[in-house]
Amino acid sequence: MRLLLVAGTTETAAIEGISAAGADPEAMVHTPSADAEIVAYGEPIRAPVVPVSPTGCPTPAVVTRAVKELLNLDVTVVDGGLAEPTGAPTVTVGARPGGDVREDDPVPTAQGVVAAARQFGQAIPDDEVYLAETIPGGTTTALGLLRALGEEATVSSSLPENPLELKEDVVAEGLETSGVEPGGAAGNPGVALRRMGDPVLATVTGLIRGLTETGTAVTLAGGTQLLAAAAAARHYGVEGPISLATTSFVADDDAIDFRDAAATLDVEPTVTDPGFEAVEHPATNAYVAGEAKEGVGMGGALALADQTQVPMADVRDRILSVYDRLLDAGEAEPTP
Amino acid sequence: MRLLLVAGTTETAAIEGISAAGADPEAMVHTPSADAEIVAYGEPIRAPVVPVSPTGCPTPAVVTRAVKELLNLDVTVVDGGLAEPTGAPTVTVGARPGGDVREDDPVPTAQGVVAAARQFGQAIPDDEVYLAETIPGGTTTALGLLRALGEEATVSSSLPENPLELKEDVVAEGLETSGVEPGGAAGNPGVALRRMGDPVLATVTGLIRGLTETGTAVTLAGGTQLLAAAAAARHYGVEGPISLATTSFVADDDAIDFRDAAATLDVEPTVTDPGFEAVEHPATNAYVAGEAKEGVGMGGALALADQTQVPMADVRDRILSVYDRLLDAGEAEPTP
Repeated sequence: MRLLLVAGTTETAAIEGISAAGADPEAMVHTPSADAEIVAYGEPIRAPVVPVSPTGCPTPAVVTRAVKELLNLDVTVVDGGLAEPTGAPTVTVGARPGGDVREDDPVPTAQGVVAAARQFGQAIPDDEVYLAETIPGGTTTALGLLRALGEEATVSSSLPENPLELKEDVVAEGLETSGVEPGGAAGNPGVALRRMGDPVLATVTGLIRGLTETGTAVTLAGGTQLLAAAAAARHYGVEGPISLATTSFVADDDAIDFRDAAATLDVEPTVTDPGFEAVEHPATNAYVAGEAKEGVGMGGALALADQTQVPMADVRDRILSVYDRLLDAGEAEPTP
Repeated sequence: MRLLLVAGTTETAAIEGISAAGADPEAMVHTPSADAEIVAYGEPIRAPVVPVSPTGCPTPAVVTRAVKELLNLDVTVVDGGLAEPTGAPTVTVGARPGGDVREDDPVPTAQGVVAAARQFGQAIPDDEVYLAETIPGGTTTALGLLRALGEEATVSSSLPENPLELKEDVVAEGLETSGVEPGGAAGNPGVALRRMGDPVLATVTGLIRGLTETGTAVTLAGGTQLLAAAAAARHYGVEGPISLATTSFVADDDAIDFRDAAATLDVEPTVTDPGFEAVEHPATNAYVAGEAKEGVGMGGALALADQTQVPMADVRDRILSVYDRLLDAGEAEPTP
């Protein structure tokens, strides 16, 4: 078993009100690099930020790191268009930082990225792979991809109040600039990823193709962004089984109909509840209040802990200890 | 504990008779990429070769992978100047493939690499780090570095008959072209690494500096190449303790005086014998006959297995199973 974490960026994240994945837009561009480092080392080592939301909610990388420590998870980070250097080791598939989805061509290299990621996915020898993502602004590009493909599903948010109207406006503007009708790229996922997606979606889509082609069991470790990648893979003709493991925060999100979207795409969902209500701590309270919800493989990590019978109380304890170490590391050196 | 594997290349490897780290010079340039993949995945996934010597001796990456599987070792690959793409995740410190040491400026970026690797070493949060290398031709550049620094030590070889005379000739030619007298770069390790070293030596030297500066315990996992990096670190003024864990094949090599060289550089050696005489198998027989000897962290991996009381018989069994999987993978697809 291996968890592949695809980390990248889209300028879409800088649109005001879109994302909570970082304290502000300048910090947000470092979030995926920092997330990769937190999973790899337990703390950011090159990235000059500790990713927290404007309200202080810690990145879900903390959860994935906690489970990695408990289960000795093998995690491989794939560069899905990082804009800032990371100290985490990364695999290259040629992805570049993504442009604003309102532009006409935000991911010009999408098809090359799909091809390289597909080849890499084919070559991975593990029997089972979990696929995760970290990309601020990624639910908006996921919505763009779904609309370009003509899929009805909608997307979740790292904010407690999902700014869905704003996202639909941004996507509508992008579709118009790109000259793509809603549903106009159905059956043409390469075009949809290039014109309305982001480099992480392109990478994940390519990985799903390559992994399923060689009989590797694929579980998407995340929420609606990964559902959008599954949609793109289905439009490429991928027919094999695809599972998805997400958090109860996504599954219980009233703003979306997660189970219905999964069923439409023939994706088998698993939902894991970390039981954060049992703890009184700012880190977990933020999740209970609806922030973050998912990302960096959180839902997949929780599912793996559950499957291997690690008590969720142990996972929660470890999350808090990773969080404390993270804050200590953040205080040890001046961070913006 | 983390094992950092620095993987890179030097054109010095293409000099006839210098290295056994690959079936031929064309294959050799892929060896470090393949080694990194074998440690990360258990088999080469992008690299089009299974690294074996001309006589069929498998890469020591097999040993490190075996111990990684048994101990759940955390391995991070650092790109120390790879010439061919690898599917293993890598950390970047700006290293580029090294030129032939007979040229005047084989590692023009050496000082920048030392600086970036030092910074990365400082940032690594682990209490203890093992440093390993994979670079065909690396013992010749190590000899070049030692001679430029004016150190008396000599180097081991991946060949049963160490072509020391050839190496000394190559180094003498390099010193002359570079305008460096033997010992002329004493106290100037940046010059020695640039004119007579390779990008892996520069990376390892920088890592030793950064790690020791932040109080991380450093164990060099390898043989005389890593001793040469220790020499460069000492010339940079590193005074803290440096340990080195190597194989009995290096320690018992009559062509060199390993313990004396270690003592001169104030490096504390550990020697581990994998007990390959106990097995009758082509993979282990080659080592008993004096091939390969070390590399890709083999000596460090064996020391870690020993320290954690994993019976050496289990290590040997796992080595043979990794080797069998490697051959199966090599046969599954056409390799040059």
